[in-house]
Amino acid sequence: MSPPVFDRAFRAGLADLFAWRRDVRRFRTTPVDPALIADLRAQSELAPSVGDSRPWRWIAPDAAQRIAIRNNFAQCNAEALADYEGERAKLYASLKLDGLDRSPVQFAVFCDRATTRGQGLGRKTMPQTLDYSVVGQIMMFWLAARAAGLGVGWVSIIDPDVVSAVLGQPQTFALIAYLCVGWPEEEHLDPELVRAGWVEGRGPALGASGVGDRNRT
Amino acid sequence: MSPPVFDRAFRAGLADLFAWRRDVRRFRTTPVDPALIADLRAQSELAPSVGDSRPWRWIAPDAAQRIAIRNNFAQCNAEALADYEGERAKLYASLKLDGLDRSPVQFAVFCDRATTRGQGLGRKTMPQTLDYSVVGQIMMFWLAARAAGLGVGWVSIIDPDVVSAVLGQPQTFALIAYLCVGWPEEEHLDPELVRAGWVEGRGPALGASGVGDRNRT
Repeated sequence: MSPPVFDRAFRAGLADLFAWRRDVRRFRTTPVDPALIADLRAQSELAPSVGDSRPWRWIAPDAAQRIAIRNNFAQCNAEALADYEGERAKLYASLKLDGLDRSPVQFAVFCDRATTRGQGLGRKTMPQTLDYSVVGQIMMFWLAARAAGLGVGWVSIIDPDVVSAVLGQPQTFALIAYLCVGWPEEEHLDPELVRAGWVEGRGPALGASGVGDRNRT
Repeated sequence: MSPPVFDRAFRAGLADLFAWRRDVRRFRTTPVDPALIADLRAQSELAPSVGDSRPWRWIAPDAAQRIAIRNNFAQCNAEALADYEGERAKLYASLKLDGLDRSPVQFAVFCDRATTRGQGLGRKTMPQTLDYSVVGQIMMFWLAARAAGLGVGWVSIIDPDVVSAVLGQPQTFALIAYLCVGWPEEEHLDPELVRAGWVEGRGPALGASGVGDRNRT
């Protein structure tokens, strides 16, 4: 099979996909066809992985587990709020930082650090690349999902040990991400944290980075 | 601006892009237009990041630094080889695991763990998400580069402390990846480690994953 040529129109579409990908926290409850999710997951498994180790392990929590995880989020989020003061604390408290309440599809994504696939190749000096492989896979799932019109939200305000225990996973499984997936209520070109005033916008976008020198950009 | 619709043709192209993305180690020495690299980097900076922290810092080593990093790779690779025995060691020794010799564009990619952007949001219980944000950005660069016909290779057989020292980076900068970028000598649908017999192929590809249950796939 000869390699495809990615033409100008496709590349413009890819740039649009990058620009309109968001971390979504506001979902409609409309169900998502399991066949669509299966297809997106299969596509994401074409991700690179160190030594071709493919260490990603996706677990879909059941209803009771979802409640336990949402409770853990609430506790962790309250503790995080306590780190801020004054106006910043008020702003933090006003943010919606998760879609655990309504997203119809949820996954806990683990790295199987005990996998023997790849026989350790490429991870002797940088063992963290095994975890990174899972992150790359999540990124590909995220982009494929957005292209299908789905929103993805990555929840990190959870205690990974608690989530692993709730899901009954072994110690050798490291939690990388908790994902909320579903049809988004709204679509935006700018991140919610920018719209809410938590961080400043990105400023000049495409074409703004320097290159070819040793400066940080 | 209304959100774009990603049609069937685009999504098929995205699936092709995922399928033909490879970790490239065999490059032509043909130069790459710096404007193209700048555009790809700018696109990649639309990646998600925890708390919109944008902690990615890309450093382009100069010629002397490249030599020092290549020497470090050679040493780390020899040490890795010593972990294997017999036929497996012979096979390891036959693999080409880097493109440091010829790739015209190279970057050391760091995470600035001291960044204050995002004010810590989302990383109290999972601080590793700051590093993960850089991995996601690299993944987007990789895909945009492949769409432009460029190959990217991620070298992890290096000592991150040595690379940081060679490049004079502060302790607060964590090395996430060392990337080789350039026009590939050849294009493949299957990973080089599969072709070389290091790992088995992926087996049934798209549509093969289970979903919606709690089994690991």
